[in-house]
Amino acid sequence: MAKVYLVGAGPGDPELLTLKAYRLLKEAPVVLHDRLVGKGILALARGQRVDVGKSEGESGKQEVIHRLLLRYAQAYPFVVRLKGGDPFVLGRGGEEALFLAAHGIEVEVVPGVSSFLATGLPLTHRGLSSGFAVVSGVLEGGGYPDLAPFARAPTLVVLMGVKRRVWIAQELLRLGRRPDEPTLFVAEATTSREERVQAALHEVAAGKVAVSSPAVWVLGEVVRVFGARAKEVSLASATVEV
Amino acid sequence: MAKVYLVGAGPGDPELLTLKAYRLLKEAPVVLHDRLVGKGILALARGQRVDVGKSEGESGKQEVIHRLLLRYAQAYPFVVRLKGGDPFVLGRGGEEALFLAAHGIEVEVVPGVSSFLATGLPLTHRGLSSGFAVVSGVLEGGGYPDLAPFARAPTLVVLMGVKRRVWIAQELLRLGRRPDEPTLFVAEATTSREERVQAALHEVAAGKVAVSSPAVWVLGEVVRVFGARAKEVSLASATVEV
Repeated sequence: MAKVYLVGAGPGDPELLTLKAYRLLKEAPVVLHDRLVGKGILALARGQRVDVGKSEGESGKQEVIHRLLLRYAQAYPFVVRLKGGDPFVLGRGGEEALFLAAHGIEVEVVPGVSSFLATGLPLTHRGLSSGFAVVSGVLEGGGYPDLAPFARAPTLVVLMGVKRRVWIAQELLRLGRRPDEPTLFVAEATTSREERVQAALHEVAAGKVAVSSPAVWVLGEVVRVFGARAKEVSLASATVEV
Repeated sequence: MAKVYLVGAGPGDPELLTLKAYRLLKEAPVVLHDRLVGKGILALARGQRVDVGKSEGESGKQEVIHRLLLRYAQAYPFVVRLKGGDPFVLGRGGEEALFLAAHGIEVEVVPGVSSFLATGLPLTHRGLSSGFAVVSGVLEGGGYPDLAPFARAPTLVVLMGVKRRVWIAQELLRLGRRPDEPTLFVAEATTSREERVQAALHEVAAGKVAVSSPAVWVLGEVVRVFGARAKEVSLASATVEV
């Protein structure tokens, strides 16, 4: 039976691939990947590489990706579908799995290090945060999410939220988060292009904060404790050769 | 300067280690690890292995671990501190990082695949869930967490909650989650000992559901869509040799 591996590529540094993802990239006759997966990782693939063209927040292309996946799965012994971070956190991996299963294709998920685990900030910390929430700034069709169910989490991570950061910040203030809450944007974490921007929530709401997109946005007291230190408590260097 | 790598061991399957974690395990003169890290992973370490004896929910030992870490960090060129899942999701990695930094030890974090990414369930799904929350069932000192800030997340993951599952379920019902909400416990995900137990929230609240500890507990409609299929949409087999 045809088989598709839904594989997480991790946050950026090729050394943060799992051993299994690395092996599958080497072995796969074809790798269908999102546009955002880095060159250093794609260079590890020995087979054909197919850019399915999905960047952050793009919609309408999902059906095209489904058909491409199906066509390749039917033509090869197995296929790797490579997605940034983890395949089952945003990124519509569940939809791809259901579509393929409905067409008789076996699906195996290979989890990856999601980008929100790679900011250098602990998401929980004694006395500050016994848990966290992760929310997308954009719905699959491009719509605006309801932030209320997430707004009270002591540590809140917003993914795919940079372009709408002013709206999101205003919405979170309306929902009761503190104006002086420390927040941190981390773009291209674990790569040589990493950028970190720290700002209070009210500054973001006022449109005063410039940030590259995409970035992971972390809000909460863990930023106050670890924000300045997060370069020191450092992440993977990008110079590693795999 | 002495250096400690805070390294995530991933969910269980040794092939879900990152390349970097794998390399550091091979290179480190000494590895200090939690009790819950699996034998297959520990067997990869070439240097001395020190079990710091921390199992789920244990408290009071953190200061002992800090002193051990410091002593080893001062005695060796570098040390690996190996923690299950990701080092900065629960597990008090932030405390260890702060303690070491305060004593002049360099700290580098190597993120890992957290256990909640390895259940085979997507945490987000079009139309069902634009985000998720993760909360610990037990505070660092053993106390009961305030679940209110997390209770409304469409997908909710409870870690370290098996022993208190009846209390947690009752609390979540009180906070407004639906009695017939589908939930799934996954113990020892990605290993040959994996166990999956699906139950409605009211059944857990009534004390009717037997589960091995530790397990990841996922609540939400994603369980209805993917729960039965989650074995099919399979995870890493445990037979893989690294």
